[in-house]
Amino acid sequence: MDDFPIEQPVTATWRILKYSGGQFNEQEDVVASEYPLTVRIDGEEFATIVCSPSDLEDMAIGFLASEGVIRVIEDIRTLKLNVERGFVDVELTVKQNTSKDSYNKRFIGSCCGKSRQFYFHNDARTAKTIPLRTRISAVRCLELMNQLQQASAEFHHTGGVHNAALCSADSTGAPVSLVRSDIGRHNALDKIFGQCIRHRIPLQGKVIVFSGRVSSEVLLKVAKIGVGIVLSKSAPTGLALELAHDLGIAVIGFIRGHSFNVYTHSERLEIDI
Amino acid sequence: MDDFPIEQPVTATWRILKYSGGQFNEQEDVVASEYPLTVRIDGEEFATIVCSPSDLEDMAIGFLASEGVIRVIEDIRTLKLNVERGFVDVELTVKQNTSKDSYNKRFIGSCCGKSRQFYFHNDARTAKTIPLRTRISAVRCLELMNQLQQASAEFHHTGGVHNAALCSADSTGAPVSLVRSDIGRHNALDKIFGQCIRHRIPLQGKVIVFSGRVSSEVLLKVAKIGVGIVLSKSAPTGLALELAHDLGIAVIGFIRGHSFNVYTHSERLEIDI
Repeated sequence: MDDFPIEQPVTATWRILKYSGGQFNEQEDVVASEYPLTVRIDGEEFATIVCSPSDLEDMAIGFLASEGVIRVIEDIRTLKLNVERGFVDVELTVKQNTSKDSYNKRFIGSCCGKSRQFYFHNDARTAKTIPLRTRISAVRCLELMNQLQQASAEFHHTGGVHNAALCSADSTGAPVSLVRSDIGRHNALDKIFGQCIRHRIPLQGKVIVFSGRVSSEVLLKVAKIGVGIVLSKSAPTGLALELAHDLGIAVIGFIRGHSFNVYTHSERLEIDI
Repeated sequence: MDDFPIEQPVTATWRILKYSGGQFNEQEDVVASEYPLTVRIDGEEFATIVCSPSDLEDMAIGFLASEGVIRVIEDIRTLKLNVERGFVDVELTVKQNTSKDSYNKRFIGSCCGKSRQFYFHNDARTAKTIPLRTRISAVRCLELMNQLQQASAEFHHTGGVHNAALCSADSTGAPVSLVRSDIGRHNALDKIFGQCIRHRIPLQGKVIVFSGRVSSEVLLKVAKIGVGIVLSKSAPTGLALELAHDLGIAVIGFIRGHSFNVYTHSERLEIDI
């Protein structure tokens, strides 16, 4: 797990015909790569993640944690990444039943979504009420979203790539430190989760900053990571808000310019600043 | 399949704390609903789709067609929707092996993505090279994207909802007729697919207009529906473009204002207009 293999390029150039000002012109354009990474556990194929080919070990570790296969980094005995072939082989310290029946990944997304079954079985086991009492100021909310957008310049010109960051709630002025990008919203969060698990990052006083919509699945991932505040540039769904209300997570959305909406647990906002 | 049950509301109101101009104020906000619809085939649970609760029969039919379970509407003997409980029960005319092993839905999304296995097995069976030679003008590309955005006003204020439409390529001035919206990008396309299957809509001269990113999965859905041109407001991924090139689909993206990019099969563009 300690060697860093050469990663695949996260973008590719493509010859396009551009229409602008009533004229067609040939030119080169940059598009985001889409890379399939197949996770094998103890030799058995478990899942294939289609992702941006960056931070692939974090991706695999975060995904396994998100699925409830691992809880701590010690649950993994070995992790071998074959970037060229798109495989990551994971050997667990304790054998688990990772068969299709027990994980039952028959859900189809609201890009992506959760089956109720999945929610009730696997998620109920791993998504916990957040006991942390982290608070955040309005100024810090605006600042962090602004920083997230600046920090993710790499993908900007390809369009549509999502970014997630783990940041301190209270250090006004402190830059976002851990930023992950992916063509898949959930992957960006799993990459953050992977880093947290791998380096045992303490979550006290931390918030998740996210570029995408807060769906029920995104909310559940935030709960599994163990963070009590999620900041988003976009809107939440009704189901995500119900879960956030129940799990003790403050959802702060539509952070744009100098305004935002606090959807749940507004006691986490420092109103008098 | 002919009765129309009362549908769930596609939006919900939520009490928020709005921060604007340095001040917090309580107000009501509208958020998009997220609704789990479980598809049972011949009594067996097949999948749960998390979607916006509109056009649920189209959703189920399009999803089954997309998965390769059905090809024509006659493959369905009965379809019973229980909106309140979130179940749709489908009875097929010919029994199929719809077990987890044969469909093997172990894929995880790039919101959502495809496993290679899924692509090679199921998609290779259903995604076909498009033989149609539909062509489109630059003016019509701009017009259709503009119309899609106007037609989907229902969801506008909740943010982040995706829209798909099936339109005529050549009738300049003709309004978009079939528009579907969903919180999930793929669901919006499946709802279109469902309508096409249900009403045997001829696809000659048709294009798909789409608000979201053209990922490999979106591209494959367009191929399965059987349309040779996809117009998108957003960017495609590299893998989607490789597939589009192979399957004969013209991808026209980044349609914004008066410009756009033609990524593949530019012979489908009427250059001299």
